[in-house]
Amino acid sequence: MPISSAKIIAFALLLASAAPAPAPARATYQRGLPTDPGSTSVSRYGKITFNSSSNGNVTRATFNNPPINLVDAFVVSDLFDFLHSLQPAPNKTTPKVVVFDSANPDWFLGHYDLHNIELPFTQTKADVFNQVIDCTRYILNTTSTAFIAEINGRTIGLGQELSIQMDMRFAGPNALASSFEDSLGLTAAAGGQPFLGPVIGKARAMEYLLAAKAFDGPTGERLGLFNTYYPTAEKLRSEVSALAERIALFPQHSINDTKVTLSLLNPTIASLDDQLARFIPLMYLPEDQATIAKFIEVSGNQTDSKFELGLPESSVQAVRDGVYL
Amino acid sequence: MPISSAKIIAFALLLASAAPAPAPARATYQRGLPTDPGSTSVSRYGKITFNSSSNGNVTRATFNNPPINLVDAFVVSDLFDFLHSLQPAPNKTTPKVVVFDSANPDWFLGHYDLHNIELPFTQTKADVFNQVIDCTRYILNTTSTAFIAEINGRTIGLGQELSIQMDMRFAGPNALASSFEDSLGLTAAAGGQPFLGPVIGKARAMEYLLAAKAFDGPTGERLGLFNTYYPTAEKLRSEVSALAERIALFPQHSINDTKVTLSLLNPTIASLDDQLARFIPLMYLPEDQATIAKFIEVSGNQTDSKFELGLPESSVQAVRDGVYL
Amino acid sequence: MPISSAKIIAFALLLASAAPAPAPARATYQRGLPTDPGSTSVSRYGKITFNSSSNGNVTRATFNNPPINLVDAFVVSDLFDFLHSLQPAPNKTTPKVVVFDSANPDWFLGHYDLHNIELPFTQTKADVFNQVIDCTRYILNTTSTAFIAEINGRTIGLGQELSIQMDMRFAGPNALASSFEDSLGLTAAAGGQPFLGPVIGKARAMEYLLAAKAFDGPTGERLGLFNTYYPTAEKLRSEVSALAERIALFPQHSINDTKVTLSLLNPTIASLDDQLARFIPLMYLPEDQATIAKFIEVSGNQTDSKFELGLPESSVQAVRDGVYL
Repeated sequence: MPISSAKIIAFALLLASAAPAPAPARATYQRGLPTDPGSTSVSRYGKITFNSSSNGNVTRATFNNPPINLVDAFVVSDLFDFLHSLQPAPNKTTPKVVVFDSANPDWFLGHYDLHNIELPFTQTKADVFNQVIDCTRYILNTTSTAFIAEINGRTIGLGQELSIQMDMRFAGPNALASSFEDSLGLTAAAGGQPFLGPVIGKARAMEYLLAAKAFDGPTGERLGLFNTYYPTAEKLRSEVSALAERIALFPQHSINDTKVTLSLLNPTIASLDDQLARFIPLMYLPEDQATIAKFIEVSGNQTDSKFELGLPESSVQAVRDGVYL
Repeated sequence: MPISSAKIIAFALLLASAAPAPAPARATYQRGLPTDPGSTSVSRYGKITFNSSSNGNVTRATFNNPPINLVDAFVVSDLFDFLHSLQPAPNKTTPKVVVFDSANPDWFLGHYDLHNIELPFTQTKADVFNQVIDCTRYILNTTSTAFIAEINGRTIGLGQELSIQMDMRFAGPNALASSFEDSLGLTAAAGGQPFLGPVIGKARAMEYLLAAKAFDGPTGERLGLFNTYYPTAEKLRSEVSALAERIALFPQHSINDTKVTLSLLNPTIASLDDQLARFIPLMYLPEDQATIAKFIEVSGNQTDSKFELGLPESSVQAVRDGVYL
Repeated sequence: MPISSAKIIAFALLLASAAPAPAPARATYQRGLPTDPGSTSVSRYGKITFNSSSNGNVTRATFNNPPINLVDAFVVSDLFDFLHSLQPAPNKTTPKVVVFDSANPDWFLGHYDLHNIELPFTQTKADVFNQVIDCTRYILNTTSTAFIAEINGRTIGLGQELSIQMDMRFAGPNALASSFEDSLGLTAAAGGQPFLGPVIGKARAMEYLLAAKAFDGPTGERLGLFNTYYPTAEKLRSEVSALAERIALFPQHSINDTKVTLSLLNPTIASLDDQLARFIPLMYLPEDQATIAKFIEVSGNQTDSKFELGLPESSVQAVRDGVYL
């Protein structure tokens, strides 16, 4: 398990605040790709299903965690295993394009299971947290596969953070994207903030992050969050499939070179680590812990409640009404 | 009074060209925030008026320097004092959001009082110049408050430079923004050029800066200069107020973290200093001094003349007609 | 002839693969501007014609290499000489603005003459290749002249790479721009990829590069590739001329300062060298050499064939139909 400096801070805080938890194994963070991905059990929890086309060159990875595609420990584990399996190695074939979509017409990906940042921050929670960070690092590092998010439903919180780090995003009529963490006294700390800035510009990123606003499809297309907005789910799917198959026609060495060049536009790993390090103390604030507990309560424990379906506005209203504190 | 390397160059040139002026006090530039802002007299010259709402979490700061909101020494001093008062310190409360607007329906903010860059460049002029630079550094450095420019009128020259460095800009029907300095043989040296580039892209920044063009509201919205354009002054004001109050609902520590992360997209202080250092020699060119003198004359000494109201086109026409040289 | 590290790699590979070729002269790459441009024979092959206006402050440089404005050794040589002549030197006058256009209504600029990257990679081919790289370095380095591409026709492959590195691009009804190199197993290695990313954003650059798609005028304007799209050739020409003449009104020292500041948004020379270094091995792949040979064949040796006129779709279709391999 690779560990970054931000994670070490997390562990240090964990040890200070939750004495009974076992000391975590120490390791140094491995930059770049693992040397031997080996054979990986993919989707052991069944939270992602796969369909391959174009002779294995295109894979559809479909999120499926009813009822709201909450990004819980099982989704994180399945995503981690899948991304791990995509790392290149000698004599190994990987798809040229992966399209992420969802089995749920209302949700592309939900937010993080907030139980995982409730204190005490146990070793189990730290492991899940580290897998999330590693997922974003794998998406960053894998230049042999192009990642497309086909979004037709809500993509909220950590879901939005993962989407914004993919290579391309296309939206359908039900698309609704929001990093609403500021309304909880938190921030989009798994890379969501530094990746959004260059996509829609600093001023609009300020507006959408500071005010916990949501993008619908047409707005997201206009501001550059989505490459294209399509008015029907069918058109969205057929156009994204056609694009994926077109990209998959070409040699993987060209995809790889283009991705390496454009990935220079990503935020640096150091800046991502810095953001994460600033997030950890927020998570430990008593008022933020109180907000998290109240959020879990009013959302019916993060299920398909009116509150979850109403995000981000329901969370903003909760602040306005003094519900959280 | 902190001094940057660019300022030292300015002073060196000053000493070489204007022997009678007293030698300025030397100091080293303090990066970051002043350690003890203390109590500051705010708006001692009455050029900015303040209204507070949302329990002090939102402040409206209204520029008011008739007839054309010229950014003269008094406006600069009041702005400097106000920004100074926003610096965080232990046990001190500062607003979460500041909205800058104007009491003048035709002008948000005018250009710099050009008398202040006429030779000889006295100590008094150098002091004002340094306050301008410090204002842009304070705006950059203050991450505990979000800055919104509510623009319904002209924002020209230094006015445009200050606007472009705020976190968000919203425009009404009378909005007109221009960095017209290239038409004078000068450039937008207080950060206006390096901040515009990432906002509207290099190619369009080239067009608008090199050709001294102006943005109206709809064009500015389309190119990303304004977050949103509203067709009436009332709608502009109500929507900006609603946004400010929504942001002010959330904890200041979230605002702070989001602003720190997105501020990484700002130009570096070194690049801002470099641009300033390149500007100083232009200011000392005899032909540019002649242009400045002529500008002051044909603008009726920078008052509500047809020339000022016609900027930037009136300045371009003056070049075309050979008025300046 | 200046030589970068990427070029040295190219030469090393050349020597390994093509023993009979003479060893090239070694030199170190000169960063920045040549110290003495001297008098340069401009357009010795007649591939670019020139018209001057506004007292020599505006030059129209018109590409003319029938039938498809292929960027062959002659076009490269003429472009290199012209750009060389624009380098500033004491007591030398250079235009403030250069507008590049085309004598061919169907083509602004075509792709590189692929014979020049067919193996064996002779000294002659290496010389042309190095002139291409030097052209992009000169365009980057010359801050005393503003470069405008007036595009009304196809700009494909290397043509698109040169366009994207100019300061501004304006498009007419026949404009069609594409970096289609990924369809050949290659990439836009002369700076085309790293310059496109900041212009249209990473996600859309991924889409257009990975899928070898083309921009028409309205799409290019919407995504920021073109500053403005004009629906007629006449309007395009008159508006670009008016812009060029307006810019040329102002002092060259302002143009120079604005260009220096905005050029900080360019990719670093190191990143351009890195991309070039990654490209060289692709060029030597047997399958890419086979594709290049087949491309030359099916395009009727790069003439005004249906294949050339149908780019980039004809090349994508050739991959789909298994024509290349």
